[in-house]
Amino acid sequence: MGYPETFRGFQIEDPKHWSDFKLNEFTPKPFGDYDVDVKIEACGICASDLHTVSGGWGEQHFPLCVGHEIVGTALRVGPKVMLIKPGERVGVGAQSWSCLKCKQCKEDNETYCMHQVDTYGAKWPGTDIVLQGGYSSHIRTHEHWVFPIPAGLPTNKAAPMLCAGLTAFSPLVRNGAGPGKRVGIVGMGGIGHFGLLFSKALGAETWVISRTHSKEADAKKMGADGFLATADKDWNVPHKMTFDLIVNTANSSENFDLSAYLSLLDVHGRWISVGLPEGSGQEIKAQDLISNGCLIGSSHLGSRKEMLAMLKLADEKKIESWVEEVPISAENLKTAITRLSKNDIRYRFTLTDYDKCFGSE
Amino acid sequence: MGYPETFRGFQIEDPKHWSDFKLNEFTPKPFGDYDVDVKIEACGICASDLHTVSGGWGEQHFPLCVGHEIVGTALRVGPKVMLIKPGERVGVGAQSWSCLKCKQCKEDNETYCMHQVDTYGAKWPGTDIVLQGGYSSHIRTHEHWVFPIPAGLPTNKAAPMLCAGLTAFSPLVRNGAGPGKRVGIVGMGGIGHFGLLFSKALGAETWVISRTHSKEADAKKMGADGFLATADKDWNVPHKMTFDLIVNTANSSENFDLSAYLSLLDVHGRWISVGLPEGSGQEIKAQDLISNGCLIGSSHLGSRKEMLAMLKLADEKKIESWVEEVPISAENLKTAITRLSKNDIRYRFTLTDYDKCFGSE
Repeated sequence: MGYPETFRGFQIEDPKHWSDFKLNEFTPKPFGDYDVDVKIEACGICASDLHTVSGGWGEQHFPLCVGHEIVGTALRVGPKVMLIKPGERVGVGAQSWSCLKCKQCKEDNETYCMHQVDTYGAKWPGTDIVLQGGYSSHIRTHEHWVFPIPAGLPTNKAAPMLCAGLTAFSPLVRNGAGPGKRVGIVGMGGIGHFGLLFSKALGAETWVISRTHSKEADAKKMGADGFLATADKDWNVPHKMTFDLIVNTANSSENFDLSAYLSLLDVHGRWISVGLPEGSGQEIKAQDLISNGCLIGSSHLGSRKEMLAMLKLADEKKIESWVEEVPISAENLKTAITRLSKNDIRYRFTLTDYDKCFGSE
Repeated sequence: MGYPETFRGFQIEDPKHWSDFKLNEFTPKPFGDYDVDVKIEACGICASDLHTVSGGWGEQHFPLCVGHEIVGTALRVGPKVMLIKPGERVGVGAQSWSCLKCKQCKEDNETYCMHQVDTYGAKWPGTDIVLQGGYSSHIRTHEHWVFPIPAGLPTNKAAPMLCAGLTAFSPLVRNGAGPGKRVGIVGMGGIGHFGLLFSKALGAETWVISRTHSKEADAKKMGADGFLATADKDWNVPHKMTFDLIVNTANSSENFDLSAYLSLLDVHGRWISVGLPEGSGQEIKAQDLISNGCLIGSSHLGSRKEMLAMLKLADEKKIESWVEEVPISAENLKTAITRLSKNDIRYRFTLTDYDKCFGSE
């Protein structure tokens, strides 16, 4: 068989062997009236992929093909599709469905719909089909979660924006990042570097907060107005109560002195986490929050509207992700995901050369 | 000696004997240009008083007279006082000073000033004088923290508004409680009953969330639109994602399933805690916050502007605190604070009959 009956992709079969990718054939969900089939051309490697295949986020349905920072070409569209045309270059991110009927969906909060479905790992509602991600030949997704990519954005630089970019962009715009505001970005990884780039593009004074100074030069190249290294003594003291918003992209909460970070916030300033660290959480006392009345929250992806706005902004401002390109293969995937597990990447891997691996159809 | 050189009040001398009040004479801070001396006529008994004298909030300077829900008459005012006239009926709450110069102070966030001083227990800046509270004959406070009481508010009902009332009112107005919003009040104690009364007065649909149904009838009398008892099975399930704001006034975080409460919040809804429980905090994982993108925060008292707005609203809407009046004496204080330690009060004690205890001067 082959497309459109089956797709091919690199799957993990057992979380104990989370870097052993096998090229398998699998059956996608049935083609629905609102679906778009995408021939994949590039896919970012997200920390979610690692958390998922390694079992760090709990049990999963294996075998599983991950990847949710997808760019490719729309091949065919269902009879009711209005948003996408065959032949268009499009992206698919980390969400693939929600009810589109509830209050949350109607208010551009489809990310927070109680019925939201992830792009990979979830069972397609009403079936036993486990959705497969973008380390694969094709993906089939409801048009609402398929996004035209502006012509000016290179495919391999656009791919990581589909999850990491949006994950950084949504909390920035929802929490007022813009001219006259001082924004901090904690953690300079894949999401963090987008936080910096987009916060600057939105007009906010933007500081990076990292454990050491090792990424300071990169941050300055990306436009950072300031850089704080938490290994420095009293690093927070001169900056108390001066930040309006801090987006926390750190992927671990170990040895994390949250109260020192929160002390940076002005009255009712916000600390928004976008990472989902494995393991236990953080103990928070009301006392930690009361000296400045700050707010702590989490943010999950973003809406279709925000995705389109982000891609438009990235195109207009010529925002370039810092990516390392990796031709997709089992061997390269093993190397890349192993390096990701050691944070050995500045700042995102993008899988490329899909045609060489999967052919051109 | 006596007023104005010394004041008299009921002090605790040792946290091990936190219900043994001794009537002592003490020296107030020096009379400053902006100070107002108040002859006290009533004072609420706040949970802060108990946390402080029992050592639950850590070490304190003893002997100490607590009490920060004070109503009385302005006796004399400093030469630069503009806001208060001698003879006026006034209130004093839980804060007695801040710098009034910093960004926070200038933006009506004097509560969050880095230099803010509590009404009792703090050392007066630059001295070794420990400020004493309102279980006493007089109090001396900077005019900014002395508030005219509208004529329509009875003294003994107004007193608990000075801390408990404002503590409930500020997070309501700062987080949008009003028509079209659904607000939850967790914990039906002194602060909680004000949360309910003020949230209703502001026009919000208001529900009380309590452990059991024991206070449901009272809540309905105060105007509650709904009542949830967390001891009921699946108490939160029918109400998921329907609240805009929850003000948490619970005084303990033991056996507290925070995620069940947070599930009530709509997207980016807010959970604002105003209690400061003793002991350890709560473990919070980003995962607990991500399904609705809710925000967790704390709120500390409120501004002068908010105090005046609250008193005006209470007067206009004829809001009545539910208070049990207690003539001030060492014996009555012992009984009242012991009952408070068992949550045996609906919903606030107000100390009265100051003239009988301290004389009329």
